[in-house]
Amino acid sequence: MNPEVIKKRLQQVRTYMQNNNLQALIIPSSDCHFSEYVAEYYKCREYLSGFSGSAGTLVITKDAAALWTDARYFLQAEQQLMGTGIILMRDGWKETPALTEWLIEQLPAESRIGLNGDLFSVENIKTLQAGVKGLKIIPLSDFMCEIWNERPPMPLAKVFFLPEEITGCSSEKKLSQVRELLQMEKNDVYLLTVLDQIAWLFNLRGTDIDYNMVTFCYAIVFYDHAILFINPQKLSKTEIEDLSHRKIEVIPYDKFESYLSQLNTCRIFYNPTQLSYNHYTKLMEMGCTMLREPDNFGMVNSLKGIKNDTEIAGFRKAMIEDGIALTRFYMWLEGLLKRGAVSSEKQISDMLHLFRSESDLFIRESFESIVGFRQNGAIVHYAVTNQSSITVDNSGFLLIDSGAHYRCGTTDITRTIHLGPPSEAEKTDFTLVLAGHIDLAMTQFPVGTCGTQLDIIARRPLLEKGGNYLHGTGHGIGHCLNVHEGPFAIRKDYNPVTLKPGMVLSNEPGIYRQGLWGIRTENVMLVKEGEKTDFGNMLQFEILSLCFIDTRSICPQLLTEKQKEFLNHYHGEVYRKLSPHLSSEEKLYLAEKCRAI
Amino acid sequence: MNPEVIKKRLQQVRTYMQNNNLQALIIPSSDCHFSEYVAEYYKCREYLSGFSGSAGTLVITKDAAALWTDARYFLQAEQQLMGTGIILMRDGWKETPALTEWLIEQLPAESRIGLNGDLFSVENIKTLQAGVKGLKIIPLSDFMCEIWNERPPMPLAKVFFLPEEITGCSSEKKLSQVRELLQMEKNDVYLLTVLDQIAWLFNLRGTDIDYNMVTFCYAIVFYDHAILFINPQKLSKTEIEDLSHRKIEVIPYDKFESYLSQLNTCRIFYNPTQLSYNHYTKLMEMGCTMLREPDNFGMVNSLKGIKNDTEIAGFRKAMIEDGIALTRFYMWLEGLLKRGAVSSEKQISDMLHLFRSESDLFIRESFESIVGFRQNGAIVHYAVTNQSSITVDNSGFLLIDSGAHYRCGTTDITRTIHLGPPSEAEKTDFTLVLAGHIDLAMTQFPVGTCGTQLDIIARRPLLEKGGNYLHGTGHGIGHCLNVHEGPFAIRKDYNPVTLKPGMVLSNEPGIYRQGLWGIRTENVMLVKEGEKTDFGNMLQFEILSLCFIDTRSICPQLLTEKQKEFLNHYHGEVYRKLSPHLSSEEKLYLAEKCRAI
Repeated sequence: MNPEVIKKRLQQVRTYMQNNNLQALIIPSSDCHFSEYVAEYYKCREYLSGFSGSAGTLVITKDAAALWTDARYFLQAEQQLMGTGIILMRDGWKETPALTEWLIEQLPAESRIGLNGDLFSVENIKTLQAGVKGLKIIPLSDFMCEIWNERPPMPLAKVFFLPEEITGCSSEKKLSQVRELLQMEKNDVYLLTVLDQIAWLFNLRGTDIDYNMVTFCYAIVFYDHAILFINPQKLSKTEIEDLSHRKIEVIPYDKFESYLSQLNTCRIFYNPTQLSYNHYTKLMEMGCTMLREPDNFGMVNSLKGIKNDTEIAGFRKAMIEDGIALTRFYMWLEGLLKRGAVSSEKQISDMLHLFRSESDLFIRESFESIVGFRQNGAIVHYAVTNQSSITVDNSGFLLIDSGAHYRCGTTDITRTIHLGPPSEAEKTDFTLVLAGHIDLAMTQFPVGTCGTQLDIIARRPLLEKGGNYLHGTGHGIGHCLNVHEGPFAIRKDYNPVTLKPGMVLSNEPGIYRQGLWGIRTENVMLVKEGEKTDFGNMLQFEILSLCFIDTRSICPQLLTEKQKEFLNHYHGEVYRKLSPHLSSEEKLYLAEKCRAI
Repeated sequence: MNPEVIKKRLQQVRTYMQNNNLQALIIPSSDCHFSEYVAEYYKCREYLSGFSGSAGTLVITKDAAALWTDARYFLQAEQQLMGTGIILMRDGWKETPALTEWLIEQLPAESRIGLNGDLFSVENIKTLQAGVKGLKIIPLSDFMCEIWNERPPMPLAKVFFLPEEITGCSSEKKLSQVRELLQMEKNDVYLLTVLDQIAWLFNLRGTDIDYNMVTFCYAIVFYDHAILFINPQKLSKTEIEDLSHRKIEVIPYDKFESYLSQLNTCRIFYNPTQLSYNHYTKLMEMGCTMLREPDNFGMVNSLKGIKNDTEIAGFRKAMIEDGIALTRFYMWLEGLLKRGAVSSEKQISDMLHLFRSESDLFIRESFESIVGFRQNGAIVHYAVTNQSSITVDNSGFLLIDSGAHYRCGTTDITRTIHLGPPSEAEKTDFTLVLAGHIDLAMTQFPVGTCGTQLDIIARRPLLEKGGNYLHGTGHGIGHCLNVHEGPFAIRKDYNPVTLKPGMVLSNEPGIYRQGLWGIRTENVMLVKEGEKTDFGNMLQFEILSLCFIDTRSICPQLLTEKQKEFLNHYHGEVYRKLSPHLSSEEKLYLAEKCRAI
């Protein structure tokens, strides 16, 4: 993006601010549903700053603008903000002021700070208001309508419903589970605003947001029926009728806010982190009885996080589809380079898409593929464009983090493959990352353990040699839904949600040497029951992902015997599960890749 | 204790309850200063239940009584409560009701639950009152005066002051640090109630509580002077005069409560977890402005937790004294058994005391030694008595957890030594515990890491084989003060306090096979600066304790090369630092014990 364009847009914002007596505006990344990734319609922060990462908050004052983002995006943001005058605020660095501190420093007391109250939860606003002390937070409606001239329209993609053979549980059963857990009485309602939660509850899937399987909607669960607020154009007549038979009424999406007025005599269960400030305020003004739902993380979120046997079987099937595609893809790539040809990050990304889309079950990618060669691999959330794409030859590490939604499950996998002979330093980094990955995968841990406690296991081999990675180790993975889902995670930050059998999550340690290379090894794992011992019941992980790991980049003396055994066993499983689906040539290729070390 | 005696005492309590219209009484373990270990005067819970562990809460109703304690004490409490009718409530077990739940279940609504409001902090009472819902918490003064006929007197031991050569910081400097950190103004006061905090602040030491180096006192820090509330009999005239020169006034301990009335015009900094409900209420009634101190864990606690160079040097010196005593002790014990003689846990405990007390710097033990042979080693906080003491011969593991206060520092060390030839199962357990101990000791970790994240490192080798221990991995250690001190720890529970250079803590994984054996290997470690890397600054541990580890109980193939190297290096250091102080016979013995594996 040309920085002059950004400067002009900021000027427009400042005119709006002046007209409305606002001394600052806060522009977050989120949409009205607290989504992590958003539709084009909601990319206001990107429109105004040029920074296209998934996480970041822009603050604009009369004379300054600043953007806070996390370590995944430091390099990318540096590049994209260059020349715009927007200051990059690196979250997590000691010298970085908190957004609220910065506002206090920049603005005179009593200044008015505007924000779109649809994009902030009740909790967000409370925290913000407490943080900015003498300044005033002014929640507005969507002011970007006045600023963004050629704003893209709200998406209107058709939706589809997943059958019980794939979800393992009907929407009726899920609804009654919710009603039971809330001990709902006749006058009670449960408000749902988060898209993947609603999609899970109604076994509904859509493609409104790139890479996610969700559709824009709201839902209200009543004692004996439910309402789905969704643009009816997205559904067929039969689907609407079918929903109606199952006591699920369809009401247009844009009627949600006005519908809230009809709830004035109800007790409303809501989640303070998942209900927008504007909606909350409206309900309060109508005198509704507002009850925090008992599960801080969202009851539907917690239910959704534990996959049933059908979903787990679907994940396994998806991993085979993905493994076949990846084997063929790497065989193609290596063949190409062997013939002396070169490729580009862009071509590689496109080819990977082609190989995956050969599967009948393939729907779409589950996130934008990261294809980073050599120094580009060190940009943690690198998105290759025609401009950034560099030539890939047989001279360094190629990091590919990619995944897909299949009709039965979702994948997310990172492999780093050295395309030439790796140096000793490259091998050391690769092996330490792998050692941490394996250590975490083979850990047994007591029931009651949360991800915060496990995180260091994957980092330890790196830390010992002065390495580390400034991102989390693992995230939950939705079932043909969002590739990132809560409420559990494996991160150093405190997260009280304990791991339970049926949870599916990633294991992705890495190391990033700026200007040199990036390495990450990621598999999806399932939490399973482990031993029952005198000291309590244990849990274990099982790796679900099926793709070889680059053994030529391993320095064997940096692995323990146990780690080597684990790796050899994993490679045995990869070959056993994938080979029946491969041609004899492909089998030979994979057998070589899976050879024991 | 005869269970009939306990039953009689409970009867007396019930009479008191009836006379005062109380339907329940809660008897905690603590004293007015929130001490972990208490003087005889305060052992009300032990007096009424017979359970002598350091942690436990007794609840008495008209018809029932129950005692909550943690995993360290399950076996001991089972034995000591037998026949008393008191139900043992095992904290941490899923089926164990919370104390508040149990009360709700037992009592009709509106029931009055009495407790001594001197023993509960403002926070405690808030949490309790919220927990018992419709029941009423009634804070009383010390009702045990009416119940406990031959209650021991409050201790009156003389105190002493540590010179700056040992503390590394004068009390004046510490006081001005406190005043600065609180940005105290003329009318401000800071209330201190916790004994080790006051002791640290005034470089004061006492022996009022067994094994701790504290004296009963309160303190108030003013803008330009301070008051120490202490029984003046504990001080010499010179000491009182000297304090007065340093603007520290001495007022008798029992005048503290009445003195509070003089603070009615002051702003009072206090810690809600460290000020008793009764004192807080009094201050509020007088209309004082109450300000929570900014440090949730207590500012003095946080200052005290980071040892200065003089204190660290003192710790090192104490470790040498301790290591000499332990070498001589084990040499004596092995010699005895080699001659075909037997010993007893009690004799061993007494002999260990004798060897330690040979040091000129020795003051007292830092906690009651745990000497557990074979199955007694599985009782985590086993206290040997003449009755429980069993014969020690050359047939099993002997676990000894002991430590001492020396004038320059404090030790806390556990060694488990096999006195005969260990079985394969014993060796496996021993080696897995050692592997975890070593892994934690050699971990490097980024600045900003808290103990919660590190805990699993010490457990991992055990967990992999289905083992675990149901206690924390490490606690802070006071400098010639309390052997347990906060605010940091290495435990699975969440503790946001990050580890910082200068912190001194234990590393004590173990495994306990009920009826068979207990194994624990514990060293005291110092947190130090580690590498400065591209990924941030690192921290490391350094082991301070100096005593050999029983290499004959190691199964070498269960250790990695790195772990073996670490152990051999540690043993090299033990020999290097202790041998100059040993006789040639002792040197030979230690050299053999420290031989590389």
